[in-house]
Amino acid sequence: MTQSAAQAHAVAPTAVRSTPSGRIYNYSAGPGCMPESVLRQIQEDVFDCRNSGVGILEHSHRARVFDAILMEAFAECREVGGIPADYEVMFLTGGSTQQNFMVPMNFMPPGRGGGGAAVGGADYFNTGYWSQHSIDHAKFFGAVHEAASSKLDNYAFIPSAAAHKYSGAPAYAHYTSNNTIYGTQWHAIPTTPPGVPLVCDMCSEILSRPVDFGRFGLVYDSAQKNLGPAGVTLVIARKDLIARGNTDVPYMLQYRTFASTESRPNTPPVFPIYAMGLMFKWIKAQGGVKHFEAFNAQKAKVVYDVLDESTFYKGHARADSRSLMNITFRCPTPALDDRFCAEATKAGLDALKGHRATGGMRASLYNAMPVEGARTLAEFMREFERTAG
Amino acid sequence: MTQSAAQAHAVAPTAVRSTPSGRIYNYSAGPGCMPESVLRQIQEDVFDCRNSGVGILEHSHRARVFDAILMEAFAECREVGGIPADYEVMFLTGGSTQQNFMVPMNFMPPGRGGGGAAVGGADYFNTGYWSQHSIDHAKFFGAVHEAASSKLDNYAFIPSAAAHKYSGAPAYAHYTSNNTIYGTQWHAIPTTPPGVPLVCDMCSEILSRPVDFGRFGLVYDSAQKNLGPAGVTLVIARKDLIARGNTDVPYMLQYRTFASTESRPNTPPVFPIYAMGLMFKWIKAQGGVKHFEAFNAQKAKVVYDVLDESTFYKGHARADSRSLMNITFRCPTPALDDRFCAEATKAGLDALKGHRATGGMRASLYNAMPVEGARTLAEFMREFERTAG
Repeated sequence: MTQSAAQAHAVAPTAVRSTPSGRIYNYSAGPGCMPESVLRQIQEDVFDCRNSGVGILEHSHRARVFDAILMEAFAECREVGGIPADYEVMFLTGGSTQQNFMVPMNFMPPGRGGGGAAVGGADYFNTGYWSQHSIDHAKFFGAVHEAASSKLDNYAFIPSAAAHKYSGAPAYAHYTSNNTIYGTQWHAIPTTPPGVPLVCDMCSEILSRPVDFGRFGLVYDSAQKNLGPAGVTLVIARKDLIARGNTDVPYMLQYRTFASTESRPNTPPVFPIYAMGLMFKWIKAQGGVKHFEAFNAQKAKVVYDVLDESTFYKGHARADSRSLMNITFRCPTPALDDRFCAEATKAGLDALKGHRATGGMRASLYNAMPVEGARTLAEFMREFERTAG
Repeated sequence: MTQSAAQAHAVAPTAVRSTPSGRIYNYSAGPGCMPESVLRQIQEDVFDCRNSGVGILEHSHRARVFDAILMEAFAECREVGGIPADYEVMFLTGGSTQQNFMVPMNFMPPGRGGGGAAVGGADYFNTGYWSQHSIDHAKFFGAVHEAASSKLDNYAFIPSAAAHKYSGAPAYAHYTSNNTIYGTQWHAIPTTPPGVPLVCDMCSEILSRPVDFGRFGLVYDSAQKNLGPAGVTLVIARKDLIARGNTDVPYMLQYRTFASTESRPNTPPVFPIYAMGLMFKWIKAQGGVKHFEAFNAQKAKVVYDVLDESTFYKGHARADSRSLMNITFRCPTPALDDRFCAEATKAGLDALKGHRATGGMRASLYNAMPVEGARTLAEFMREFERTAG
């Protein structure tokens, strides 16, 4: 493998290098951009990690270098997130989609796993594509009651507390706190009936703002938005909930298996865990989640201000439900959307094309997006409106 | 994150840098050593992959840069492995342990998944710790018949064909082709009764020698031995077997889900797949599996010759069952084993401590171990015998 061989496969060599370091601004919804200081650290550690003479990819998952990396990742996740002591922090694989079936497999009333007929059920808030996806997976294991839905309005808002209707005694209630495709975000944690554990798919916003994790039974997050590369899923769960999970489930699909083995019942995804650990350190060094709450609000405002001042662009999300992570908007016509994306890519502003469910554009401004990325996008939007509008 | 902060956590800074590049020889059984040219390529791509202005960790799994990387990985796996056209190549997560339950979940006669009682069964060869592990996972889904076992002899050999006793009509037969802990390896593919698919855990030896994949129903391999870092599992399976897998299984645990989505029903482990792709290219560039067959035999002989010439060291594996990947041996006493490992580590020969099941030492000589690594170890062994023996 030579660099010239790799360059023969280069696919986007003509874009303007829009960032000070000679890279481009990457607004991808996930995997998303990472801090350059973290990437520089990874470059060193791939060849020789912590002066061990061995790279991070080559260390045994049970030897001392990775032992230290893993323990630091657990500790720094707890510190940065403010995770209560009665919660486990676990690192799994299979992405959030694996959590979509592990949650009902472990917490729906047993029956499906061992007894055949689906019995009992859980409550789900349907606020987007991934909520619907979670519901579809859960139905394999039991009945699903929709506690509220914004589906009929193409998921443009988050249902208010007055609209939340829980079923009698659900095994748990599940919601998706940020909807990447539609650009909506819950600004308050829903209140469940007494004794009903709250489960949250927090993928695209975890550690982007302070959260009271003590409000949840279980939270899951695939890392590739705010916490580094794809390949590891962070699960934070109350210990007593883990303990009462179904037992008639394959060993590797029980949460207790990961809780009791430091998340390494087998070889874990060493590099993704290591990289997520670097992200915890970076979040802490920047000032923690309180810093990012203000920083992310500042960045999002830069772009939302363009939408609010424009008659050309139209945002998808209702104003009270806007996401600080993913901003979705359209030009007056699909042809202009296409032209917007093509010209943005040429200018070194990449991955702005929206999901087919909403059309238009989507700008993801996760923790690692610098404020210059938001400003450069806002300038581009204003200039595009001026020339194309 | 600064390098000096990372160095404060360094844990093995005093070892002699034993390799020409200033690293050390790493005989870890997995994750194991990788070629330095591949590590250098990764260092470049982490910051800017294929001249895209975006690093490999930050590219969307559905955008053009990763599209190309994924398609090349599939194609080069097929080319390097000589995979027949009627087989699917898939990239999963969860390691080989996930395959330990996915195989029976998909191919044991249905019943457990939907009907409750375990019915039907499969045949397993019990040749080591991981075979036993596979058997334990399979028992959750149905009856297991042991087609042969070397357990009573502490797994020191591979049962000969004459000792293979299949049950009446097993759903499939499963074996582990290389036993990392015991240092044994199958030198011929077992012959199953007509119509019985052969399933192989080929983790620690895949692409280390030519294999007729057409003999198998399904082969699995977690990458972290011969194919790069941990975090991705290669599965090669006959299309008709995938098609007739059980359907009453969660969507994300069916092989057909991965076969029909280019292995990305959700966000796949982008970096581990990318790195495995680099390994396929590297294997090809070195001369392919035929090259490695000779190369690995040459390296293993360098170390086995020391055992055969010595009255001090004793190998664990019976001579006819020796692994070319993992060489297991002991000194005359456990105290000498400990001294051997400690002195080797100081000399820059790391990760030689054997598994507790065998005691002694284990030297893993995967594809990426240079011949100098085998020679340096052999010299160290001879010198240790001379001074300590």
